[in-house]
Amino acid sequence: MSKPKGFEKPTGFRDYTPHVVSKLRMIERNVLECMERWGYRQIITPTIEYYDTVGVASSTSDRKLFKLLNSRGTTLVLRSDLTAPIARVVSSMLKDEALPLRLSYHANVFRSIEEEAGREAEFFQTGVELVGDDSPEADAEVVALAIASLQAAGVSSFKIAMGHMGFLNGLLEEVIPGQTAEQEQLKEGLLGRDYVGYRQSIEALHLEPGQKQRLEAILRLRGGKEICTHAGELSSSPEAAKSIAHLCAVFEVLEAYGVSEHVLIDLTMIGDFSYYTGMTFEGYAAELGSPVCSGGRYDNLLQQFGRALPATGFALKTNRIIDGVHGITIEEKKSVRIKYSPERRAEALAEAARLRSIGQNVITSLLADQGEAIVSGANADRNEQVIIYGSDKGGL
Amino acid sequence: MSKPKGFEKPTGFRDYTPHVVSKLRMIERNVLECMERWGYRQIITPTIEYYDTVGVASSTSDRKLFKLLNSRGTTLVLRSDLTAPIARVVSSMLKDEALPLRLSYHANVFRSIEEEAGREAEFFQTGVELVGDDSPEADAEVVALAIASLQAAGVSSFKIAMGHMGFLNGLLEEVIPGQTAEQEQLKEGLLGRDYVGYRQSIEALHLEPGQKQRLEAILRLRGGKEICTHAGELSSSPEAAKSIAHLCAVFEVLEAYGVSEHVLIDLTMIGDFSYYTGMTFEGYAAELGSPVCSGGRYDNLLQQFGRALPATGFALKTNRIIDGVHGITIEEKKSVRIKYSPERRAEALAEAARLRSIGQNVITSLLADQGEAIVSGANADRNEQVIIYGSDKGGL
Repeated sequence: MSKPKGFEKPTGFRDYTPHVVSKLRMIERNVLECMERWGYRQIITPTIEYYDTVGVASSTSDRKLFKLLNSRGTTLVLRSDLTAPIARVVSSMLKDEALPLRLSYHANVFRSIEEEAGREAEFFQTGVELVGDDSPEADAEVVALAIASLQAAGVSSFKIAMGHMGFLNGLLEEVIPGQTAEQEQLKEGLLGRDYVGYRQSIEALHLEPGQKQRLEAILRLRGGKEICTHAGELSSSPEAAKSIAHLCAVFEVLEAYGVSEHVLIDLTMIGDFSYYTGMTFEGYAAELGSPVCSGGRYDNLLQQFGRALPATGFALKTNRIIDGVHGITIEEKKSVRIKYSPERRAEALAEAARLRSIGQNVITSLLADQGEAIVSGANADRNEQVIIYGSDKGGL
Repeated sequence: MSKPKGFEKPTGFRDYTPHVVSKLRMIERNVLECMERWGYRQIITPTIEYYDTVGVASSTSDRKLFKLLNSRGTTLVLRSDLTAPIARVVSSMLKDEALPLRLSYHANVFRSIEEEAGREAEFFQTGVELVGDDSPEADAEVVALAIASLQAAGVSSFKIAMGHMGFLNGLLEEVIPGQTAEQEQLKEGLLGRDYVGYRQSIEALHLEPGQKQRLEAILRLRGGKEICTHAGELSSSPEAAKSIAHLCAVFEVLEAYGVSEHVLIDLTMIGDFSYYTGMTFEGYAAELGSPVCSGGRYDNLLQQFGRALPATGFALKTNRIIDGVHGITIEEKKSVRIKYSPERRAEALAEAARLRSIGQNVITSLLADQGEAIVSGANADRNEQVIIYGSDKGGL
C-alpha cells in the first residue's frame, strides 16, 4: 500500500473542468426546469444515510455500498440512489402533504465497487418520483416526462424500452412454478441481455417442447403495441394478464401524449433495481449501448419506511449524457479583459462594474509593467476583448 | 446502540423541503453567475479525497474529518472544504493553464463533530479561488467579489472585517519572541473573540507595562483606514510593517472599487483556517452573530501539492444565509391543474404541453369519478388554476 502522491485523487473519482461543468450545469438546469413545468418540486436529501434504513432499502448490492461508521459506532452509507432517501422523506417530513406527491432531484450518488472496473464511483442522477398513484396514467406520466427530460438534456435521438415485471413473473411461475433459483437464473440472463445464456438455461430445464417454446418466445416480445396481443397469447396466468393490460393502458396514454413513437414494448426487459414491482423502462440514446435513463414502478418500497404507498419514477444517468451523447454544446462566452495603470484604477473598475451589470464577463488586472502592450483590441486566441487604461491615457 | 427507525436520518444531516431548495438554488445561481461575470470559471471536485493529501492539507482538525477506508485499506475523507481539493486540481489537471487562475465552486462539505453540538455535519459553500497572484490587487478583488456575492445572495446589510496574519505574527514575535505556545494561546483568545481570556493570557505573561500595553492595544485596532497608521506605531517588526503596508494597499483598491464603506479593518481578526498566511476577512450580516463568509490569502498551501503558487479566495457560508438572513424570498409559482375524462385525454394533454411550452407549471390527472367537481376555475387555497376536460364537454 503506497502513500498517494499530493496531486492524486482516489480511483473512480473525477474532477470536472470548467467546460464540462458548463455542460453539466446546463443539463441540470434545463431538466429540472422541465420537471418543474410538469409540477415536480425539487428536494435535497443528505449525502449520508443510515445503513439499516436507506442502505438496506436501496437496490444497490451490499458490496457496492460505501460504508462508514459514525462516532457512536452506527453504520452509515453514502447514498447509492435517491429513490430510497426520498421514500424516507415522504414517510417523515412530507407525511402530511396531499397525495399524489411529485418530487424531483439532481444529486450525486456513490458505488464503491465501480472504481475497480474503471467505472465512476461517484456520478450524477437527475430524476423524479411520483408517489401515491398506482394508475397507468401515473406510469405514462413518468415515461412521458422521461422523454421530455431527455429532450431537455439535448438527447435528440433515443428509444424508450418498456416492460413489466409482472408479466415475466407470471409466465415463469406458470411454466416452472416454485423453481425460484431457476427463475432467477433466467431473469439474470435477460437482465444482462445474454440471450445465449438464457437459451442455455432453458435447455438445462429439460422442459417439454411447448413449455420450452413459451420461454423462448419471450425473446421475440419486442416491438409496438401488437406485442401486448402476442404476450396475452403466451400466458394464461392472471398476474401476467393483469400486467399486460396495465402496460397496454400505459401505452395508450403515451399515444395521447403524442410520444409513443419513442416507445418500444420489450417484455424481455427487467429493471436492474430489485425494488421494481410493475412497469419498468430504460432509455437508449442512438450514440450509446448502455441506457441514459431508467425507471419503473416500486409499490413495496415505501412500506419499509412506514408508509405503504404506490410509487413510480425514473432517473437520467446524467454523466453518460455529458460524456457520451452529442447533445448540448456550450459556446465559450466571450469575455472582456480590462488592464489599468494604478492612477486610472477607479475609472477602469467602474467600467468593469458597468459591463458586468449588463451581463458581460470581465476580468480586471493591473498593467504588469511598461513593457506590456498598451493597445486595446480583440485577442482572437483567447476569445476576448482587451481594454487598456494606460497611464499615458493613450490606450483608450 | 439502538437500531435507527425507518424514517430516521443520521444526526446533523438535513432534508431540504422544496421551498428551501428554491431559495438555495436561487442563491447558488445568482452567486455563481456573479462570479462568472468576474471571470471565475466553475469546477467540480469529488466528494471523496485521500486523507494523506487533501485531508491533511485541509484546515479542518483531524477529529472533525469524516473518514472511511477504501477496498485497498487506504484512508479516504469526505471533503471538509474546497480550497485543498482545488489546490490539488491546480497542481494536476490545470497545471498547464495560464496564470492567474480564477475558479469558482458551489459544493457540500462535511464536518463529523458538528453533529454532536447540534450543528450541521453537511452544508453548502459557494466560493472562489484566485491562484497565481500575490498582489494587493488580487486580495482586493476577492474581497470586492465577496461583497458582490453577498449582494447577489440577497444579503443587504453586512460588514466585512479584514485583518492580516502577518501583523499579529510580527507583533507577537517582537513582544514574546520564540514563545510559540504563549503566542498560540493569545491567538486562540482572539480567534474565539474571548477578549477576557486574551487579557488574562497577557497578565499571565508578567510582561513589563509597555509590552503589555502593546498587546492590549491590539484590541483597539478596529476601524477605518486610520487603523493602518495606529498599527504602524505599535510595532517596528519588519513583518508587521510589511503586512500593514499590504493591507493598506488592499484597502485603497477597495476604495477604487467603491465598496470600502462595507469594510472594517480589524487586526484582532484571525481566519480560522490554519493555512492562511496573509490578509484574512470575514463577512457579518446584520441579522447574525456568526460570519456568513470568510476568506483570505494562503501562499503556502499549493506547494504541498507540488506547485508553489500564491493564492487567495473566500467562501460564502451558504446555509447560514438560507437560514439566518432575510434575503431572497421565493414566490411560489402559480400552477395550472388540468383534469380530464379518458375520452378527452389527448385534447387535455395537448393543452398541458402548450402551457408548459410557454413556461407554465402544469399538473395533469384523470378526473377521479363522476362525483368530482367538474367546473374550471381558480383554487385560491392551492394557488392554482383548475381546468376541467369533462366527459360531458360541459366543463370547458
